[in-house]
Amino acid sequence: MVVAGRGHDGGVRDTPYLAVDETLLESNLAAMAEHARQHGLALRPHAKTHKTPAIARRQLAHGAVGLTVATVGEAEVFADAGFDDLFIAYPVWAEGPRGQRLHDLAGRVRLRVGADSVAAVGMLARAASGGEHPVPIAVMVEVDSGHHRSGIEPARAAEIAAAAHEQGLTVDGVFTFPGHSYGPDEARRAAGDEEAALRVARDALLAVGIPCPVVSGGSTPSAGESRGDVLTELRPGVYPFYDAQQWELGTVGPGRIALTAVATVVSVRGDRVVVDAGSKIIAADRPGYASGHGRLPHHPGARVVALSEHHATIAWPANAPLPMLGERVRIAPNHVCTAINLVDELVVERSGTEVGTWAVAARGRNT
Amino acid sequence: MVVAGRGHDGGVRDTPYLAVDETLLESNLAAMAEHARQHGLALRPHAKTHKTPAIARRQLAHGAVGLTVATVGEAEVFADAGFDDLFIAYPVWAEGPRGQRLHDLAGRVRLRVGADSVAAVGMLARAASGGEHPVPIAVMVEVDSGHHRSGIEPARAAEIAAAAHEQGLTVDGVFTFPGHSYGPDEARRAAGDEEAALRVARDALLAVGIPCPVVSGGSTPSAGESRGDVLTELRPGVYPFYDAQQWELGTVGPGRIALTAVATVVSVRGDRVVVDAGSKIIAADRPGYASGHGRLPHHPGARVVALSEHHATIAWPANAPLPMLGERVRIAPNHVCTAINLVDELVVERSGTEVGTWAVAARGRNT
Repeated sequence: MVVAGRGHDGGVRDTPYLAVDETLLESNLAAMAEHARQHGLALRPHAKTHKTPAIARRQLAHGAVGLTVATVGEAEVFADAGFDDLFIAYPVWAEGPRGQRLHDLAGRVRLRVGADSVAAVGMLARAASGGEHPVPIAVMVEVDSGHHRSGIEPARAAEIAAAAHEQGLTVDGVFTFPGHSYGPDEARRAAGDEEAALRVARDALLAVGIPCPVVSGGSTPSAGESRGDVLTELRPGVYPFYDAQQWELGTVGPGRIALTAVATVVSVRGDRVVVDAGSKIIAADRPGYASGHGRLPHHPGARVVALSEHHATIAWPANAPLPMLGERVRIAPNHVCTAINLVDELVVERSGTEVGTWAVAARGRNT
Repeated sequence: MVVAGRGHDGGVRDTPYLAVDETLLESNLAAMAEHARQHGLALRPHAKTHKTPAIARRQLAHGAVGLTVATVGEAEVFADAGFDDLFIAYPVWAEGPRGQRLHDLAGRVRLRVGADSVAAVGMLARAASGGEHPVPIAVMVEVDSGHHRSGIEPARAAEIAAAAHEQGLTVDGVFTFPGHSYGPDEARRAAGDEEAALRVARDALLAVGIPCPVVSGGSTPSAGESRGDVLTELRPGVYPFYDAQQWELGTVGPGRIALTAVATVVSVRGDRVVVDAGSKIIAADRPGYASGHGRLPHHPGARVVALSEHHATIAWPANAPLPMLGERVRIAPNHVCTAINLVDELVVERSGTEVGTWAVAARGRNT
């Protein structure tokens, strides 16, 4: 068995750290790309998950048409890294410095921005027309397909699109995030809601004479259920790695999880094993359906029963030998996106051996 | 009313960001220092909360005897910033590069390290004696006072202390973290457990002829109940800022919360207000007793009912006017320690006006 953390230089990296299995990563990237191709969908992965240009480049090599990001700051980082087709899938409020930053971005990349209010469209129009010369900002109208976060009701999508048109902005289409797919056995229903909402929204635009070339949806749990009947584009984020949440939702089995936190056993009492990976490396996300604060892919019977900043307490299964003090274990975070946002680099491994690191260049770019 | 985010230069900082009210910070620092003085306790604040040398310097100015940290990496950052008395209150496993790093640290600061196993003491002894010349590492024996994380049973503290002595390490004393104070109405009971456990541990050392000059406890919820009968030292972390968790536990009221995330309203539907502060700026910590994913100190009736990476959904109270799109609101994170660990700088404010920034120099130093 390969010892976690023993690198190609023979040294041992101090724990905790986040390790990516490059082989699993590649097969996950290939599988989603193939799914999109089979269904005639453009793949525009959400880069908020990895925030890592090295991984985004692999996604484009597998055929992705561009990237999705969550913030102007993430867009700036990926633009600096040479990516030229970016969609900020968020109802950006383009006031103050952010308006100027959007203007500058739109001057150097093909930029789409989400909007779900006429007021936000007005801010985007000012950002596009401001500065020394106008720049093109394309609007994507966000609609609510059942997650009830941001997004206008689908039937009202044309109000936003018309306002954008009137103010000289291009409208590329409509999008939704079917986030209610994050529940046990909800993926198929959420994909159905997504398709229904996007069909209404697209037809609302077409009814007022506004073309709707892009119809964009997707979340990692529901992506496998998304078809190209209405959708033209998929934006899953988590799929390069998956995580404990996707395992427990049934999206994939533990054998496809490509990112784990490598941790050292620092304390053992009875069947309780304490390791040095806490919420500052695997994050504290814990949806109601989760069985704990993360999962151990190599020990499916173990449960992370408590989590503090630098400790995870694992209830070890009775039928498995207890790990020794100093031994290393691997924990899949519940939510890989927020775990990666805690580190400045990912450790890349092949067959359990460290082969390099990747900079998480957009970490913490929240604005 | 002062507009959040309008700085002394007249500009507006893009949201979201974490802002510290300097006046409240100072009064919180002064109050805990006064409590410690009144009870004859040395104050050794836990710097994992703020990770910020500028704040640690203020804690020392208020009389703190040194700092507590959680990791070797945090100790390195504070040593680099000139702090010379550091306690790593964690059962450090000093293998590999970490052993050498501990050795280097102990060569330049007064260093105490936690241990709760004979095996870990052995690693610490090798770290102390390794390298070109031996360096002093003082052991603090960690005991479990009821939180059931790391820490040996108090009656067995002498086993660890004796092993340290035999291997040439100094023993400074015993410590515990009464983390079970983090529950409604648990502070007094946890402080009682802390005192009882530390008394047993101290007496166990004295019984085998090992002096025990330092008896260290403390958590922010229980600190107000800690007395100097057995304890000699307090290590609260959260008290410079407090947070939604401390508010809901009853440790303080909202008027003493000195750190908030400043966020912009990006979407409004009915009584649901969506702002641009998500789990990547306020963190996802949510204890079972919490009423939501954070609290709004200026709107006690509001509840953060949903949280994703870049969105918080707030159920706005019926008796208050809804905020407008683009308006700014402030959210106190549930857990200030993990929120600060997401940012590279804190924005410092006086009376709501930005007056500077502080570098969170030890952010992400998990190893």
